Amino acid sequence: MKTRIEGHLRSFQENNRNRGRLLVSCPDQPGIVAAVSNFLYEKGANIVESSQHSTNPEGGTFFIRFEFECENLNEKEALLEHDFLAIAERFSMDWKFTYAYKVKKTAIFVSKELHCLLELLWEWQSGDFTTDIALVISNHEDAKDIVESMGIPFHYIPASKEIRKEVEEKQLQLLEDYDIDLIVLARYMQILTPDFVTAHPNRIINIHHSFLPAFIGARPYERAYKRGVKLIGATSHYVTNDLDEGPIIEQDIERVNHRDSADDLKKIGRLIERTVLARAVKWHLEDRVIVHENRTIVFN
Amino acid sequence: MKTRIEGHLRSFQENNRNRGRLLVSCPDQPGIVAAVSNFLYEKGANIVESSQHSTNPEGGTFFIRFEFECENLNEKEALLEHDFLAIAERFSMDWKFTYAYKVKKTAIFVSKELHCLLELLWEWQSGDFTTDIALVISNHEDAKDIVESMGIPFHYIPASKEIRKEVEEKQLQLLEDYDIDLIVLARYMQILTPDFVTAHPNRIINIHHSFLPAFIGARPYERAYKRGVKLIGATSHYVTNDLDEGPIIEQDIERVNHRDSADDLKKIGRLIERTVLARAVKWHLEDRVIVHENRTIVFN
Amino acid sequence: MKTRIEGHLRSFQENNRNRGRLLVSCPDQPGIVAAVSNFLYEKGANIVESSQHSTNPEGGTFFIRFEFECENLNEKEALLEHDFLAIAERFSMDWKFTYAYKVKKTAIFVSKELHCLLELLWEWQSGDFTTDIALVISNHEDAKDIVESMGIPFHYIPASKEIRKEVEEKQLQLLEDYDIDLIVLARYMQILTPDFVTAHPNRIINIHHSFLPAFIGARPYERAYKRGVKLIGATSHYVTNDLDEGPIIEQDIERVNHRDSADDLKKIGRLIERTVLARAVKWHLEDRVIVHENRTIVFN
Amino acid sequence: MKTRIEGHLRSFQENNRNRGRLLVSCPDQPGIVAAVSNFLYEKGANIVESSQHSTNPEGGTFFIRFEFECENLNEKEALLEHDFLAIAERFSMDWKFTYAYKVKKTAIFVSKELHCLLELLWEWQSGDFTTDIALVISNHEDAKDIVESMGIPFHYIPASKEIRKEVEEKQLQLLEDYDIDLIVLARYMQILTPDFVTAHPNRIINIHHSFLPAFIGARPYERAYKRGVKLIGATSHYVTNDLDEGPIIEQDIERVNHRDSADDLKKIGRLIERTVLARAVKWHLEDRVIVHENRTIVFN
Repeated sequence: MKTRIEGHLRSFQENNRNRGRLLVSCPDQPGIVAAVSNFLYEKGANIVESSQHSTNPEGGTFFIRFEFECENLNEKEALLEHDFLAIAERFSMDWKFTYAYKVKKTAIFVSKELHCLLELLWEWQSGDFTTDIALVISNHEDAKDIVESMGIPFHYIPASKEIRKEVEEKQLQLLEDYDIDLIVLARYMQILTPDFVTAHPNRIINIHHSFLPAFIGARPYERAYKRGVKLIGATSHYVTNDLDEGPIIEQDIERVNHRDSADDLKKIGRLIERTVLARAVKWHLEDRVIVHENRTIVFN
Repeated sequence: MKTRIEGHLRSFQENNRNRGRLLVSCPDQPGIVAAVSNFLYEKGANIVESSQHSTNPEGGTFFIRFEFECENLNEKEALLEHDFLAIAERFSMDWKFTYAYKVKKTAIFVSKELHCLLELLWEWQSGDFTTDIALVISNHEDAKDIVESMGIPFHYIPASKEIRKEVEEKQLQLLEDYDIDLIVLARYMQILTPDFVTAHPNRIINIHHSFLPAFIGARPYERAYKRGVKLIGATSHYVTNDLDEGPIIEQDIERVNHRDSADDLKKIGRLIERTVLARAVKWHLEDRVIVHENRTIVFN
Repeated sequence: MKTRIEGHLRSFQENNRNRGRLLVSCPDQPGIVAAVSNFLYEKGANIVESSQHSTNPEGGTFFIRFEFECENLNEKEALLEHDFLAIAERFSMDWKFTYAYKVKKTAIFVSKELHCLLELLWEWQSGDFTTDIALVISNHEDAKDIVESMGIPFHYIPASKEIRKEVEEKQLQLLEDYDIDLIVLARYMQILTPDFVTAHPNRIINIHHSFLPAFIGARPYERAYKRGVKLIGATSHYVTNDLDEGPIIEQDIERVNHRDSADDLKKIGRLIERTVLARAVKWHLEDRVIVHENRTIVFN
Repeated sequence: MKTRIEGHLRSFQENNRNRGRLLVSCPDQPGIVAAVSNFLYEKGANIVESSQHSTNPEGGTFFIRFEFECENLNEKEALLEHDFLAIAERFSMDWKFTYAYKVKKTAIFVSKELHCLLELLWEWQSGDFTTDIALVISNHEDAKDIVESMGIPFHYIPASKEIRKEVEEKQLQLLEDYDIDLIVLARYMQILTPDFVTAHPNRIINIHHSFLPAFIGARPYERAYKRGVKLIGATSHYVTNDLDEGPIIEQDIERVNHRDSADDLKKIGRLIERTVLARAVKWHLEDRVIVHENRTIVFN
């Protein structure tokens, strides 16, 4: 299995060896699109996708994302980034170039409920997720067999409130060892410490099993049942130190009715959780998500 | 227009002169369906629709709704209700017969935003809502022309927090004068007093412009925008004395994205509000909604 | 894995050892509900769910499904079915009792695309599908490893138009050997012969990758792309000898746009195919689907 | 009412007196975005929205839409268009500038079913549709009162197959008299002649009451009922001389089930028809729709 996926990654890298992306945010003013698109043109890059957004026609913040093809891109990275400095300075830009062939390394954290993990693995082995799932960390052993059967390292780290500090030290060491770019909490039911979260800004994606901001916190399906809602939902968001208050990347819902028990809601919800998390991770991996004032701009 | 609608109602009454409904709730135990369906059979009623629900297989509450056809039903009403007493007693039932030809009288309360009112009027004049819209009450005059052009009495009663008592006295008098069965708050932006609400249990339907329990209270679209949700919704519910906490009848959502301003959310939300309120009112008019422990059972 | 699932099945059988279902269709007339519910009551069965449908108030066909609990049901099967004959005759009924503890045996046919198979296996191992997946048959070997890793027999039978007869003989022998109740075509891309289909009326469920009746036949996503539709869909249906014309059990759609290539449609479609097929199979396993005049009544 | 809407239009024109749009399609090649965005920058235009699409990374067609703000735009129209010629020639562009303050004139054709017309009027009087609804043409008189009550000219032109030629002559005369930009067939149940259609390429929007390409032609709801579909839909498309085969602008669906009669499907379908047509018209009015090889690119 691992071999097959490595084949996927290699063929993806081959197909995308000239594919780059440029993300920019800056104070809105005339001339930004012209300046950046000129720059790319002069560097021999052909823009294949572009999206822009402005928070406010006047005095707001401007965001733009370009996806481009450029011959021998990997040899030009340093030059591109160096030469872009002049434009970046002129418009006071936050910016980054990313290169599709530099595949992001992902760590998945999971607990006993495996449906979100399985969905991610399934999308991954289908070739739809371009990432290297470098390891899976869990406080239970339920996922061990399936993860290892796919050739992915599995790390069992029992966790509890009392030993949170030690647990996180081990986790942080692993993240460093594996050079991780993205952490996905695929129903990992432990709270992370502020230090852990702060160290990974907009790089931890969680799935919450309600349409936030409804049912923040524990046991959302039980509370949804009790409230008698006619829709249940799921929300994927970047983790911040305000519980379930981080920037929302994606949400979806499913219809339920009076016949559905709290247990039924959980089962129905699994499908939404799986798809909502998978979409958010996919968009993140493709550098389509920008965070601004606790809201996300998703260029999809 | 009024003439055309009166034509609708008359033809509905004619088509439904033998159509009755029986709603029952009681402690769950064997034999209920058999007893009630036998009773209806012996009275010459043919069951055309039946739905049941049990909160819990053992020791729970059982709900059943029958819709039936019975020759000369209007002459048999008293007899039916009298003879049903024996069964009702045996099973400790809460129960009611309703008769489709006894069309419910509805009062619509509205403020300055007319989209929900217009949807209700539109469904009504299409013949899809079987009710007599007996009057419209508003604290503004915006709806006057359209309401009166349809031959419906319009009552303008300016309202504010300070004069709430006097306002409600006038409203209650009108509800009594017109013999109203159902009150629909079609974006009527005033809070009703506990006395007013208590006097109409499960007979006031409100539309709230969020997917409750998210964004309870004022300005939900502004708050939805600020929170950066990817879905907005609307909720129709019976009004109780806990603000926006009454039993939910129906909810729906629409997808939004980062380009939508708070004003866009309001516009997009209008469509959801209209359809969600219309569905809830329709189900109530057809006696499809039962309230149990602040949740609704909707037999649709 | 197999052990875990056998545990699921055993605990399901234990929990449902008193659970039966009765499905009836007959010419509509008064007294049916009364007669059947009385019968069940007298036999000591408590009705926990009932649904009915009539194709036409007058002179139509009436359908009813009861789900009931009855002490020591497995000892009473023969008696129930014998004693029901009198009622069945009186109302000219088609009828069957089924027993939840008699778990249906399912064969899954699959080709090279595994997403539908994987979804079924996933729902099954989660305990949501109450069936014994007795074997998987495929004309390719792609599914072999995953299927056998779950302890399910995998039969590789290469297929082509030329040898259809021999292939089907082998398949039919396996279906008989394993005593199969339900055949699921989980993207099995071969046409079945009329003899094969006729031998399994309403017992073969297929997933077609379009919202039928649009795009009947081959390559629906390519044709959907060419037509420029804004929605793509999937349809699960019972197989008949009219290609893609059998009774529809379930359909769903997903939104697409001009940016999506035919390949993108295929990827997006996989999610719909998986969920639509899984729902249809689940409803069939719970005896919720009745076929009437090439349409389905789904009591869900 | 007319006065109120004229107020809307005037305030829209005022708010948008500097708002222009540029739509371009041309063979794909590097440098297009740079050239056009430079041009706009040099002319003093600030890009507030841009969207692009390429049918194929290599050798395909490239589409781009800019929305921009430019001081004193109405004085610069001729200059802009003149100076753009050089770029247009260099890249072999099809292109057009449009000016938001030049409000399009719309004619609505309707028959006896008014729900789509009413939705358009409702969106219009809410200020959400920026168009001048210059006249309504109908082969029935049902819409007369409501249309005239809003101050819109209503033209009653009885129609039938036999007199199609004369009818269309009258209609064409009216379209010319009123200087119409867009024709909306809001459930106008007459076939237009090839001459009529050819004279208005991509300027006639129709609503078809099925999810095309399912149920092309007459009586789609009856056929949907008979086929037993679980979803019904509606499709808005530009009219071409192939019946119901024109480029699709928007589609949507609603879930139905076995209890819904053909008449119920019609009622449920009305809501979808209304919203699907309204969205398509809105996007057309905002110059968001480009037709390419019988498919639409919708930059929304």
